[in-house]
Amino acid sequence: MSRRRILITGAAGFTGRHAVNYFAAQGAEVIAVLRNPVAMKSPAFDFPQGIQTYVCDLSDRKAVAEMIKTVIPEDVLHLAGKNSVPESWQNPLLYMETNVMATLYLLEALRILPSCRILVAGSRLKYRIGAVLPPHPYSLSKTLEELVSLAWRTLFQQQVLLAEPCNLMGPGSSTGFCSLLAGHIARSENGVQQAPFKVSSRSALRDFLDVRDAVRAYEYILDKGANGTIYRIESGKERKLGDIAEQLLKLTQAAVPMVWGSETAEKPVVYSEPPFTPEEEATALGWSADISFEQSLSDIMDYFRVGREGGWA
Amino acid sequence: MSRRRILITGAAGFTGRHAVNYFAAQGAEVIAVLRNPVAMKSPAFDFPQGIQTYVCDLSDRKAVAEMIKTVIPEDVLHLAGKNSVPESWQNPLLYMETNVMATLYLLEALRILPSCRILVAGSRLKYRIGAVLPPHPYSLSKTLEELVSLAWRTLFQQQVLLAEPCNLMGPGSSTGFCSLLAGHIARSENGVQQAPFKVSSRSALRDFLDVRDAVRAYEYILDKGANGTIYRIESGKERKLGDIAEQLLKLTQAAVPMVWGSETAEKPVVYSEPPFTPEEEATALGWSADISFEQSLSDIMDYFRVGREGGWA
Repeated sequence: MSRRRILITGAAGFTGRHAVNYFAAQGAEVIAVLRNPVAMKSPAFDFPQGIQTYVCDLSDRKAVAEMIKTVIPEDVLHLAGKNSVPESWQNPLLYMETNVMATLYLLEALRILPSCRILVAGSRLKYRIGAVLPPHPYSLSKTLEELVSLAWRTLFQQQVLLAEPCNLMGPGSSTGFCSLLAGHIARSENGVQQAPFKVSSRSALRDFLDVRDAVRAYEYILDKGANGTIYRIESGKERKLGDIAEQLLKLTQAAVPMVWGSETAEKPVVYSEPPFTPEEEATALGWSADISFEQSLSDIMDYFRVGREGGWA
Repeated sequence: MSRRRILITGAAGFTGRHAVNYFAAQGAEVIAVLRNPVAMKSPAFDFPQGIQTYVCDLSDRKAVAEMIKTVIPEDVLHLAGKNSVPESWQNPLLYMETNVMATLYLLEALRILPSCRILVAGSRLKYRIGAVLPPHPYSLSKTLEELVSLAWRTLFQQQVLLAEPCNLMGPGSSTGFCSLLAGHIARSENGVQQAPFKVSSRSALRDFLDVRDAVRAYEYILDKGANGTIYRIESGKERKLGDIAEQLLKLTQAAVPMVWGSETAEKPVVYSEPPFTPEEEATALGWSADISFEQSLSDIMDYFRVGREGGWA
């Protein structure tokens, strides 16, 4: 069997870096797509030897077409995109251009490769069109990204898979709750004076999954997923933010300044989609999470203690 | 009362030219937006004196923002867009960029003018998301244009109105059935040898409305429409294509080469939207069609007999 040639967009991102490393370790020929060549010079940039990189601004339609013609991928893992709700309020068009149009540029370019499979990473923050109004531009953009991906598949007979992961955690540069708190703890361990870390609602529930498990789920979906299906990827266990924070704080001897918010849970996030069927869970493809929550927290702490993020001066 | 300052996009199009003339005749200050200044040199370009024109490529985000800042319109009638199903198969991204993103560029630019009302001209060829699959890229683009327009209204508290006109007919440059046959007849009257005009299905039903009545409906909607409502504009009378053709042919003495297709009606167009309520009809605002079908056909024939289209050599 020849090596799988996989194009990974958003390769410099939190999930992207793990994906590049994982697929390379599996023996795949990985082409890591970066928007900015400067990202490669970051100290946190640790791609193994032999990874090909391709610099492409995915919002440049012609550049995307040229990239696909040049690389001729067998699989595409499309992780690139903007994912900050506050930023989406500041620059909503950027979210439409990056999350919707850039995905379409990829799909359109892939029409020359009808057997190429593309996995588009979606979001649980999508809204249900027709049932509720979009809560923020980010939600609108991810909802439309999914919609247009499935539409292009229908119109042009493409191989399109979608994934909706829960909250991802793990070592690496992330703006997720666990990483923010771990960085705060590591800075406290190093004697950095800093404002208290605020846990706004201790009882808010979140399903966290290790990013490395999510990347393996993407592999299952690319290998075994049914064309046009949206797969949910989750640990299946919801945890309270307060409990997660306390578990992380047990990993340190340092005094960590904290502020605990009201015990009143935030308004629960309404997933306004109809219930998913068991066939739409990544577990239906044989995938399951391997990395324990405790291991994941410990690896995150290690990541920040090594200080690769430059988290403290 | 000061003159209404209305920006009309797609001003060189079939509906756009009528809209410019109509609103100017009503005493409005009209700013006609053209993509291509060459359009103004066309012999068919007959804007009255005193119309301001503004050349802007609506797919240029910065140019759109600059235009809105410069013009400061009180109303926007957004008629620009691509509307050919076959062309949408050839260049689907162009349809997404023109019908979806350009509309968003307008809406985003209009955020500096919260009291400005924008009427976005939609299409009956939209599909119902979630219930059916998009039949062609044009349908996808018009469906999303409507969706994002309403989403922007919700997210940014804008004044957004939508209209879904039925088939429009009338004097002017149009690719509609009546105009195509009228041009064919006029050329026959002038002795032009040409291939027969094909009426593929005599029994196919269409609701045709005069474009000038539709423009008046747009005025009603801009003046009286409820924010966020999609208004249907129609004559209320469906006619068979074969009957329409025969009625046009009665207006000539010339021998007109025709081919009549099978009597079997085409597959009916399924309007997969839930039924509209009476409040969502333009008639609910006091509008009604004024121009008879016969008058409209006669005006179309006159338009082509004058030969302004250069329809014959």
